[in-house]
Amino acid sequence: MKIDSVDFFYLSMPNVLDVGDGSQDALLVRVQAGNHVGWGECEASPLVSIASWNCPMSHSACKPLSASVLGEQIDTVADIKRINRKARANSLDLLQADHTLSGIDIALWDLIGRVRGEPVYKLLGQPRAFRKLAYASQLFGDDPQTTLDRARAVMRSGFKAAKFGWGPYGLGSVKSDADHVHAAREGLGSENVLLVDAGTVWFDDVEKARLRLEALQNCKVGWLEEPFVSGALNAYRKLADLSPSVPMAGGEGCHNLHQAMNMIDHAAVGYIQIDTGRIGGITTAAQVAQYAAERGIRCVNHTFTTHLALSASLQPYAGLESHDLCEYPFAPSPLGRDFTQTKMEVREGQVEIPEGPGLGIEPDLKALQVYMRRVEIKVDGQTIFQSPTLP
Amino acid sequence: MKIDSVDFFYLSMPNVLDVGDGSQDALLVRVQAGNHVGWGECEASPLVSIASWNCPMSHSACKPLSASVLGEQIDTVADIKRINRKARANSLDLLQADHTLSGIDIALWDLIGRVRGEPVYKLLGQPRAFRKLAYASQLFGDDPQTTLDRARAVMRSGFKAAKFGWGPYGLGSVKSDADHVHAAREGLGSENVLLVDAGTVWFDDVEKARLRLEALQNCKVGWLEEPFVSGALNAYRKLADLSPSVPMAGGEGCHNLHQAMNMIDHAAVGYIQIDTGRIGGITTAAQVAQYAAERGIRCVNHTFTTHLALSASLQPYAGLESHDLCEYPFAPSPLGRDFTQTKMEVREGQVEIPEGPGLGIEPDLKALQVYMRRVEIKVDGQTIFQSPTLP
Repeated sequence: MKIDSVDFFYLSMPNVLDVGDGSQDALLVRVQAGNHVGWGECEASPLVSIASWNCPMSHSACKPLSASVLGEQIDTVADIKRINRKARANSLDLLQADHTLSGIDIALWDLIGRVRGEPVYKLLGQPRAFRKLAYASQLFGDDPQTTLDRARAVMRSGFKAAKFGWGPYGLGSVKSDADHVHAAREGLGSENVLLVDAGTVWFDDVEKARLRLEALQNCKVGWLEEPFVSGALNAYRKLADLSPSVPMAGGEGCHNLHQAMNMIDHAAVGYIQIDTGRIGGITTAAQVAQYAAERGIRCVNHTFTTHLALSASLQPYAGLESHDLCEYPFAPSPLGRDFTQTKMEVREGQVEIPEGPGLGIEPDLKALQVYMRRVEIKVDGQTIFQSPTLP
Repeated sequence: MKIDSVDFFYLSMPNVLDVGDGSQDALLVRVQAGNHVGWGECEASPLVSIASWNCPMSHSACKPLSASVLGEQIDTVADIKRINRKARANSLDLLQADHTLSGIDIALWDLIGRVRGEPVYKLLGQPRAFRKLAYASQLFGDDPQTTLDRARAVMRSGFKAAKFGWGPYGLGSVKSDADHVHAAREGLGSENVLLVDAGTVWFDDVEKARLRLEALQNCKVGWLEEPFVSGALNAYRKLADLSPSVPMAGGEGCHNLHQAMNMIDHAAVGYIQIDTGRIGGITTAAQVAQYAAERGIRCVNHTFTTHLALSASLQPYAGLESHDLCEYPFAPSPLGRDFTQTKMEVREGQVEIPEGPGLGIEPDLKALQVYMRRVEIKVDGQTIFQSPTLP
């Protein structure tokens, strides 16, 4: 069969707030081929990703994604990989294309999985999926007491692991940051997993990060995530050398295979965190998972949004038993919560990879109607994109 | 003064062809502050870069560029750097933002230079600018005879250096590729500089590239550019180790400082090729130039388009005497050719950095009228972008 259509649904909370919550909007992607459908999701800036779908060509290596996707033969996993390669080459100079491709690629895996009646992780060659320890992903509170309260709330919800990040962390004093980490540890208790996400706050300043290591070590933090911007390889490696007991985690900003390989080879991360909705979809995320596993680096998803994105992000390392952590959106926006009919519930602190065909997730099209935003893009009076209607 | 407005002018040839010529469209940027104006240019996909200027915010680290630029204080070079940093943080998750920022940053340097009556290279702390040896940047012909003819034409135009790239190179047999390189060398004569650009054709396949080295060595090629995609650090380094006499060149795809640092530190390139219109503007390109110079890596611009982009790309390393090569758009489209009133002519094979204030370049607004494309973007019926009229 051939790819007949690709549709982009821009969904958003009515009021998007200037806070770190990345679940306030979403870009849902539907691919149709013959009588079959697949669903995917792109991370970040829906309008810009939409623009890269059907913008005018700039030259042979700067084409819109549509030029590499519409009308393509799609019967097998090999077809998905071929389309992914073609899109990368045709859109080499179109920076946003990697994010847009991600949602399309995810939808293609979902589609082939639905056709075959098999979950994506099996299509990827993994005989079985292993449950992951879900960590509740949270923002630090404005003060340590709020952080403590949030940690306690996480525990009451049945989680055995939590990550705190962003908010005030790294912006105030070393003491204040330490207070937040201690509060989080107190709220979680000594037995549970505590992770810290610095949200790139120190850019590439190793010294600022080094001053925070002592509190992280004392609180037995499982990893320090994104002390620096993605790709600041030398800074990551220097900090890792200074931190024998707290490994580094990073990689969510990677938008292609080599950026992730570089984080593994040259940044000395202990955990590579891939957002399937950014790196180029499941195809690329699976390549990263294999590369990481061969080198003893643990994979973990980056997911702050919906359960569709969550399932997509887990498939590439579902079969790697020792890669046993999973970022779980603990307090998504109503949009993130309402996004899917199928929910991936946490039971005894664990989350299971769906066994349904494809991603095993159905978007809740009825619930999404109220979040729909209508986009229209014209060039020289001609409409090159108009939001489709949610079915 | 404050930044009052930023305008984007999408310009394009009436028919954009599916060929490697990157000068078929352009995105001109005008920044106005008080009574002053500055001009810049973004590389690649004008519509997508426009969308990232004023798209709705997704969250606190995924804002449109306008949120970090409009209304900002702009009196000094330090203000430009501050705005650049602010934009990177506010638009961390908006991939295309780096390309859009590039044009804005260039325009801000131009503006401050015009206010001060000084060329940008002086604002960057370089006491004088050195002439560069211009290499004519060309596509390989469809067959070796065409390549030979093109090389001869370049010599007749007074150039002493040329680069051939893209077209059939790397896609056919090793013999056919060698024939093209020999034809280019024959056309240039033995005295002149010959460079080869593989246009990322081997992705990260070291063996395919290795097979081409012998012909490059025999033809005394000055560098092999982009054998692999930008960021394929390990592949670059392996090939560099196999090629003692032909250095590697790369970096045009870098869209931030660390990606360029990584090419210098981990890819063993001999030349770092920065496109000021992609990496985040003159601010970031100047950081890369300093980093490269300190490590004995030579800087060279990536410019295939206009003389505005050419001036912007040369400013960051204008004062580095031994970094003496310059990519020069040899056969730009009529749009690329008509873009500026001021032309940077090649004399005795050399090009001079303009001594006029700012970039020393005036766009030819009258000539550009016929290339103007009108963009309109609406979200929920509200116009968030509408192309301005060229003055």
